Amino acid sequence: MKVIYTDEHRKHDGAMEFLNGKLVPMFEMPRRMDMVMDRVRSQGFKEILPPQPIGLEPARRVHSDAFLEFLSVAWERWHSDWPKTTFAAPFTFAMRRLGQKPGKSAVSQFGYWCFDLSSPFVPGTWDAIKAAHDVAITGQRLVAGGERAVFSVCRPPGHHAMKDMAGGYCYINNAASAAQAFRDGGAAKVAVLDVDYHHGNGTQDIFYDRDDVLFVSLHGHPDQEYPYFLGYAEETGRGKGEGFNVNYPLPWGTGWDSYRQALADGIRKVEAFKPDALVVSLGVDTFEADPISHFKLKSPDYLEMGAMIAALNKPTLFVMEGGYAVEEIGINAVNVLTGFMNA
Amino acid sequence: MKVIYTDEHRKHDGAMEFLNGKLVPMFEMPRRMDMVMDRVRSQGFKEILPPQPIGLEPARRVHSDAFLEFLSVAWERWHSDWPKTTFAAPFTFAMRRLGQKPGKSAVSQFGYWCFDLSSPFVPGTWDAIKAAHDVAITGQRLVAGGERAVFSVCRPPGHHAMKDMAGGYCYINNAASAAQAFRDGGAAKVAVLDVDYHHGNGTQDIFYDRDDVLFVSLHGHPDQEYPYFLGYAEETGRGKGEGFNVNYPLPWGTGWDSYRQALADGIRKVEAFKPDALVVSLGVDTFEADPISHFKLKSPDYLEMGAMIAALNKPTLFVMEGGYAVEEIGINAVNVLTGFMNA
Repeated sequence: MKVIYTDEHRKHDGAMEFLNGKLVPMFEMPRRMDMVMDRVRSQGFKEILPPQPIGLEPARRVHSDAFLEFLSVAWERWHSDWPKTTFAAPFTFAMRRLGQKPGKSAVSQFGYWCFDLSSPFVPGTWDAIKAAHDVAITGQRLVAGGERAVFSVCRPPGHHAMKDMAGGYCYINNAASAAQAFRDGGAAKVAVLDVDYHHGNGTQDIFYDRDDVLFVSLHGHPDQEYPYFLGYAEETGRGKGEGFNVNYPLPWGTGWDSYRQALADGIRKVEAFKPDALVVSLGVDTFEADPISHFKLKSPDYLEMGAMIAALNKPTLFVMEGGYAVEEIGINAVNVLTGFMNA
Repeated sequence: MKVIYTDEHRKHDGAMEFLNGKLVPMFEMPRRMDMVMDRVRSQGFKEILPPQPIGLEPARRVHSDAFLEFLSVAWERWHSDWPKTTFAAPFTFAMRRLGQKPGKSAVSQFGYWCFDLSSPFVPGTWDAIKAAHDVAITGQRLVAGGERAVFSVCRPPGHHAMKDMAGGYCYINNAASAAQAFRDGGAAKVAVLDVDYHHGNGTQDIFYDRDDVLFVSLHGHPDQEYPYFLGYAEETGRGKGEGFNVNYPLPWGTGWDSYRQALADGIRKVEAFKPDALVVSLGVDTFEADPISHFKLKSPDYLEMGAMIAALNKPTLFVMEGGYAVEEIGINAVNVLTGFMNA
């Protein structure tokens, strides 16, 4: 399996996040990808390729131009208003009232285009965002060109990014952009299977009205878990998209036995949809030792997860999402690929 | 002039707020009211009365029941989920997508019912909120009963609180509730004049569709200042309320000369409206030494401000809002009252 990777993500480093009353270093850190790539190499993956310089056109198909413009200048805008701060994050938000609009200030723009404090900017964030998107689409093109499967090692992750809002460590929705790129490349139907511990509210948002992209997500129940406001089972799509959004909210403490049942059900739904391509939002924060999550999957379970996904027998793009048990993230992510390849 | 005050506000203390990348002690602190009351007493105000135990019925006329229910249990909900944190504040927000709803978790409820991190809860916050509202409505009843003017020393302040969202140090909108109480007591028309440095986005939200309550606000321009998303001059009301919302966004650096002109214009609009009662949202963060604001008013200017308001010759309730230059807040706030009484 080819692996797409670049060091550009390292530029996105050094910000803090505010969680439960405390300002803490971000759980989403560069070392996560070191551990993934160490494991990729030690497990004998030979073809590790840099991304092509693809640019933003694919992202424009799933995000608004105004939002992408914000992302591209976010750090410079913030730094101009607040030259002494080392990272940028909003602290007040344009919510559901009176058609609130972004003003000229950086604080206003951050509070309009972000839905929380966990998509902060440092000087290198935009470079990392662009590189992660290039990584995703480079992998997508290889799969569209005939590869059985490719692993795009994206950082920052993407599945919380909505059409016009960043949040939850995510800026551009790499998986959604890749799914759309399959469509634009001729695939009639594409499925996105999101196995990250957190609901892919951004991907759901982007495809909620559509019947050509099936979104299936297994995740911590929104009554207990981030992103808190979406991810309920009754969110099944809207209009033409009705029936093409499938959520499996699972309670804290979920182990492999019940996870596997939900995954098997989700995979049956993907199979019934008969997609021409599959994008897997690969988060491994379902792991028992994840510091901010509450599922109980063990490392060998990811081998079986990979085998189950392989049984769909679709051209498959794996896009890296979350996973914060840094020491084991490589083992768990690569186990999915190994299980997939050995199936 | 009668002054309504209680020490209950002291229970709302000890939280932090997140501003521009830093977690800092709240600028909105109990000592603010100590300074106000010291000045009230030293300037010879004789009738300092405690609030009546009025309860929440007036607030229900301007806030949703679900929102008030949230406020009443917010700390207990948070403490139940996060027993080790000393204050409660949201960190992710339900914004403009897919009909996001509050879930069962405290984080979700805070992120749904608050629009920023600056309306945190500690164990005593709800008691302080209720007391501040009692202070406002006790003053309102005295004015409705024939007093020329009363000063309600409310803390926490209220003018950023929307129908169903807390934010910006505000929880229940004391001034809006008082204005509605005048209406419910038989006043055909009520004006709210908001001279706080920050736009009264909550009061605007509550009365935006109505022609029986005129809202006039002078404030820092939303392109430069909190609350950032509302407060533009083109926000003039909606439907029946068109023409009954008047915003004067003023640039950083505004001093008394230009402030006075805008205030005179706003006062003419209040006069033309012919209200039966006037509520003044009295913030003195327009002061030149305010640590989070950028206007240049000096202490004697507040005497003239009071005189200008007195010239309207309406039954007037002063409701305390912001002002963070703690050492001078008493001088400046009481100068408005003195100017009013001496006019």
